[in-house]
Amino acid sequence: MVGIILGSDSDLPKVQNCFSILEDFGINFELIISSAHRTPGQTREWAASARKRGIKAIIAAAGGAAHLPGVVASHTTLPVIGVPVETQIGGGVDSILSIIQMPAGIPVAAVSAGKAGGANAALFAVEILAVYDESLAVKLSDYRKKEEQKIAAKNESIASVGYKKYIEQLEESK
Amino acid sequence: MVGIILGSDSDLPKVQNCFSILEDFGINFELIISSAHRTPGQTREWAASARKRGIKAIIAAAGGAAHLPGVVASHTTLPVIGVPVETQIGGGVDSILSIIQMPAGIPVAAVSAGKAGGANAALFAVEILAVYDESLAVKLSDYRKKEEQKIAAKNESIASVGYKKYIEQLEESK
Amino acid sequence: MVGIILGSDSDLPKVQNCFSILEDFGINFELIISSAHRTPGQTREWAASARKRGIKAIIAAAGGAAHLPGVVASHTTLPVIGVPVETQIGGGVDSILSIIQMPAGIPVAAVSAGKAGGANAALFAVEILAVYDESLAVKLSDYRKKEEQKIAAKNESIASVGYKKYIEQLEESK
Amino acid sequence: MVGIILGSDSDLPKVQNCFSILEDFGINFELIISSAHRTPGQTREWAASARKRGIKAIIAAAGGAAHLPGVVASHTTLPVIGVPVETQIGGGVDSILSIIQMPAGIPVAAVSAGKAGGANAALFAVEILAVYDESLAVKLSDYRKKEEQKIAAKNESIASVGYKKYIEQLEESK
Amino acid sequence: MVGIILGSDSDLPKVQNCFSILEDFGINFELIISSAHRTPGQTREWAASARKRGIKAIIAAAGGAAHLPGVVASHTTLPVIGVPVETQIGGGVDSILSIIQMPAGIPVAAVSAGKAGGANAALFAVEILAVYDESLAVKLSDYRKKEEQKIAAKNESIASVGYKKYIEQLEESK
Amino acid sequence: MVGIILGSDSDLPKVQNCFSILEDFGINFELIISSAHRTPGQTREWAASARKRGIKAIIAAAGGAAHLPGVVASHTTLPVIGVPVETQIGGGVDSILSIIQMPAGIPVAAVSAGKAGGANAALFAVEILAVYDESLAVKLSDYRKKEEQKIAAKNESIASVGYKKYIEQLEESK
Amino acid sequence: MVGIILGSDSDLPKVQNCFSILEDFGINFELIISSAHRTPGQTREWAASARKRGIKAIIAAAGGAAHLPGVVASHTTLPVIGVPVETQIGGGVDSILSIIQMPAGIPVAAVSAGKAGGANAALFAVEILAVYDESLAVKLSDYRKKEEQKIAAKNESIASVGYKKYIEQLEESK
Amino acid sequence: MVGIILGSDSDLPKVQNCFSILEDFGINFELIISSAHRTPGQTREWAASARKRGIKAIIAAAGGAAHLPGVVASHTTLPVIGVPVETQIGGGVDSILSIIQMPAGIPVAAVSAGKAGGANAALFAVEILAVYDESLAVKLSDYRKKEEQKIAAKNESIASVGYKKYIEQLEESK
Repeated sequence: MVGIILGSDSDLPKVQNCFSILEDFGINFELIISSAHRTPGQTREWAASARKRGIKAIIAAAGGAAHLPGVVASHTTLPVIGVPVETQIGGGVDSILSIIQMPAGIPVAAVSAGKAGGANAALFAVEILAVYDESLAVKLSDYRKKEEQKIAAKNESIASVGYKKYIEQLEESK
Repeated sequence: MVGIILGSDSDLPKVQNCFSILEDFGINFELIISSAHRTPGQTREWAASARKRGIKAIIAAAGGAAHLPGVVASHTTLPVIGVPVETQIGGGVDSILSIIQMPAGIPVAAVSAGKAGGANAALFAVEILAVYDESLAVKLSDYRKKEEQKIAAKNESIASVGYKKYIEQLEESK
Repeated sequence: MVGIILGSDSDLPKVQNCFSILEDFGINFELIISSAHRTPGQTREWAASARKRGIKAIIAAAGGAAHLPGVVASHTTLPVIGVPVETQIGGGVDSILSIIQMPAGIPVAAVSAGKAGGANAALFAVEILAVYDESLAVKLSDYRKKEEQKIAAKNESIASVGYKKYIEQLEESK
Repeated sequence: MVGIILGSDSDLPKVQNCFSILEDFGINFELIISSAHRTPGQTREWAASARKRGIKAIIAAAGGAAHLPGVVASHTTLPVIGVPVETQIGGGVDSILSIIQMPAGIPVAAVSAGKAGGANAALFAVEILAVYDESLAVKLSDYRKKEEQKIAAKNESIASVGYKKYIEQLEESK
Repeated sequence: MVGIILGSDSDLPKVQNCFSILEDFGINFELIISSAHRTPGQTREWAASARKRGIKAIIAAAGGAAHLPGVVASHTTLPVIGVPVETQIGGGVDSILSIIQMPAGIPVAAVSAGKAGGANAALFAVEILAVYDESLAVKLSDYRKKEEQKIAAKNESIASVGYKKYIEQLEESK
Repeated sequence: MVGIILGSDSDLPKVQNCFSILEDFGINFELIISSAHRTPGQTREWAASARKRGIKAIIAAAGGAAHLPGVVASHTTLPVIGVPVETQIGGGVDSILSIIQMPAGIPVAAVSAGKAGGANAALFAVEILAVYDESLAVKLSDYRKKEEQKIAAKNESIASVGYKKYIEQLEESK
Repeated sequence: MVGIILGSDSDLPKVQNCFSILEDFGINFELIISSAHRTPGQTREWAASARKRGIKAIIAAAGGAAHLPGVVASHTTLPVIGVPVETQIGGGVDSILSIIQMPAGIPVAAVSAGKAGGANAALFAVEILAVYDESLAVKLSDYRKKEEQKIAAKNESIASVGYKKYIEQLEESK
Repeated sequence: MVGIILGSDSDLPKVQNCFSILEDFGINFELIISSAHRTPGQTREWAASARKRGIKAIIAAAGGAAHLPGVVASHTTLPVIGVPVETQIGGGVDSILSIIQMPAGIPVAAVSAGKAGGANAALFAVEILAVYDESLAVKLSDYRKKEEQKIAAKNESIASVGYKKYIEQLEESK
């Protein structure tokens, strides 16, 4: 099982494909809205008891003074994957630095900020679970093959309609 | 009394004039080394009981993923003054953003990063205490007058020896 | 009483929740539009006489070459809380650095830039007043408990409707 | 077993504590110098066969146009932990962004840049292994307790000799 | 012939004038969508065989962790021109640094990020071909003369209608 | 006459060539150390009376929260030339933004930050004086011709000794 | 007379208030669209002959690789005022640095980037002309008094209708 | 033949390996110190006549307001390779942006900033020449094979002495 903790419910839509990818891989997850600063007690208890509840990896998303992944990591030795949420002030670079620059001893590992973040956090969590689960590793390989096929299909499409028409179709489909 | 909390003893020399200014103003202070991540329990207890122990303002210094001031603020409603410590990666701008960009509801206020930070944190704490202490307010005014006089003395010195000689003396005194 | 000074009336909507929070806590405030550069005389007089008029803390909001909080601080020893307003050029990081990097001797303390700034400036001002006002300290604790309950309610809501429906409702309510 | 890949042997001293921490935890590791750009074939083969060789997690350190972790991740579904090495141009923020901003589908997770990076990469790798290894999880808890005790010892030392003497001793020991 | 490789078909509209300029200069081009990370095999084969297929210069566009130009360059000694695509997180500065900061030995050269990038990449490719093709060099000179004439026409227009009317016309034509 | 105002005497060596260039051009100058924040009264009086004292242009150097040029400009309609002093935190970009991003109505114009700043501020002041002083304009042209000759001499030197020897001589002369 | 040079006619609307302010002060100006790179000959001739044509100060606006002000300055010893135009990539900080970081010997002075830039460039040019024109200096003082009165009027308005109504009116008038 | 133009002789040591690599590949080069701003006439004439003198590619190195590559490109349609020199203010990111963000129509392509820049500019120039010179293309492949062998030798060395001893030897050889 994967634990997902968000500092604010407004971040839910931003990491939405995190949920769908975990579901596609058949991984259960536990979701909680809990702030490092507004609900420090709930955050601590959730993190401290995560391993006992069967959680194998934690995904923590936060933006700005993005303390949540680090605070979670201070209460558990499970791997904590940080998802930097974009901000208006520092664009998201502030969130990234606030997440990864942890002092030696308490690691947090961050994946892509922004739109790709939710997907990559989910996939990284699956990769952790797949270390000891052969069938999951196979599913990951299949997932990558499908991604390759999508690109192949696009190249075929460009070859058949020409790049100009393809761009027109792209713009229309927006 | 002022509470001072540092994430690492290696930050002690960096905020040194914080201590001397508080002593000059006759303010007691309590000093603790406590990390947001390595000693989260100690940090929480220290912050949560600070008001009861008679602390009126808290100075928290940290660098990098500078979560300490925010974590302290999540456990107390005392004013928390953040001192951003310089870093090699983001130069200190990372520390500043990691300290001040708190979510609405749990404020932390940051003073100058770097060398001026310790002094300004101490003076800001004194300003808070001086809100209800007339004699401290007078001491603050006196402090500023002395600063003005130092600049006046420098101008007199430049006027008497000339700027070239003055620069030479500056370089020599390094 | 809290003094609020803005460099431009166009900043009024940006710090709006500053006013409402102070009102919720029953704190009087004095509001002035005064520029560090366009009305330097008015700014100086307002700041220099603030303590005598009964002001206990000053909130100064400014963006870009955000000199206002520092200029105010140069004329008073009251605590000056800076609110960095977002900008198009530096995103607001310019405002933050222009506010906090004061020389040793004249501190300004800055809270969150952007939307959370007005709220956190107000709350930090209340925290200063609460240092010597037990009943305000209790109100601050109550405020935090309400914030905690809001998050608890959100978790209950997600648990009952499921995360997919919850996200849909979020998007609709925009 | 953990795989460690560095783009240049000049990065070896920078991630040195990565090796010692893995040794302290009794984890075997395989070390290779291999550039994403100068030895692309070797990098590909090493990454593609890593899982078969028994590697459970990969640590990849790189600076500047830090493509190595991403290139490794494109050839394996093992978890890839990126260690951003400091640079002269972008300070290391360039390395961080070049490592984590992977497109959706191929995640890389980055830990602290700079000095803490080697240690945190090793610890994150241990955390991954500890997901299915109870005894490693216990060792991780013990490691954290020792870190806590070090800080407790420092506070005792400051309490006994006073902060001034302590700072003197710190400076001397440099 | 020029080879154009894009990491994603969503980048096609962004570098559109790359195609039209090459067509204007009568240069054939080969277009492929191929990701450094999702289709590493295809990218490698395309780059490694480019010289044999008659390609003289390669244009590679990518954003974020923009590894594509560097990965292409690791498999060919043809000149690789990088086009940094804008991003939401680092604004495009992240793409620029991720493209150009290649280690000594494997160069990539980047042109303008953003809208001007496609055009300038095409023109730079033409400049490379024109090194040994006198008639192309003449076409490049003619292209520049036309650009000069466009500016001359604008100055005449401003002179005849006045700057106020000219600005109105500009705004209307948007 | 040119007025030169520095926020701190520690900035004197940094803008040293400002003085020597003005002397070379035979321009008198008035020098004062005056802080925007520590001696606001002195700064205001000096700026407000500058025109009456015969000052034609003001050079104001400051770093960090570099408010001095803007504060000076708020008290005079003389042209104020800002010299951004380098800082440890923002590298000097913070000083630049803090100086130039003045609100519409009160301009400050900034020249190069760092080593070239003092020289360029002096030359810009001379350019202002030369608007109505033909002989100064001639001196400026002569100054530029000498700069050209220095470069010509270097090219001759490289041509005669070869670039390898020239680089050796450069390194030795450091 | 003031010379205004823009790298592109698309910058005309961005510096529009530059023209209107010069007109308000009764200052003639000469306007040219001329690129540093696309019409280098025209730019050189315009700049080199500017002083002879009676121009006293030059305003040069440019964005991105904002070379125009520097290129103009390389052909004249008139004061060149740079106006940094906002960009999508670096936000405008790139334009600022590209304008002011001139080598010692050839100064360019930059005013505010963005919306305030056109106005401040015009006012700075007027300040230069006013150095030797008493009546212009009086007009500048009058201009500032009017700006002060506008702020006074706003404070009266807030006082009479209350801040809530005032904000409503602000939002409506957008 | 390759043309190399530097804005200042102080940049000579920084791009030193540019010369040695060209010599290793048997490519003649022409070297000139010429500033975009201090010797604009010389720069223009050198660039405008470069093609006639047999130059096939131009390498232009500059830092800060790094206008040189763009100014050169405005006078020639030869490919211009920019080498961003590191700076104290923007670290070199300022130089990079000032070089590549050219307007559509006049491309400049930049390689690595800093130490790797000279080498990569030379190699990129060789790649341009190798487009129509089979034997140079072979030499480029050989160069890369040698780089691969160096890395292979390092891995063998680490394998034989162990990583600890290897690091010691690295540190000693500094």
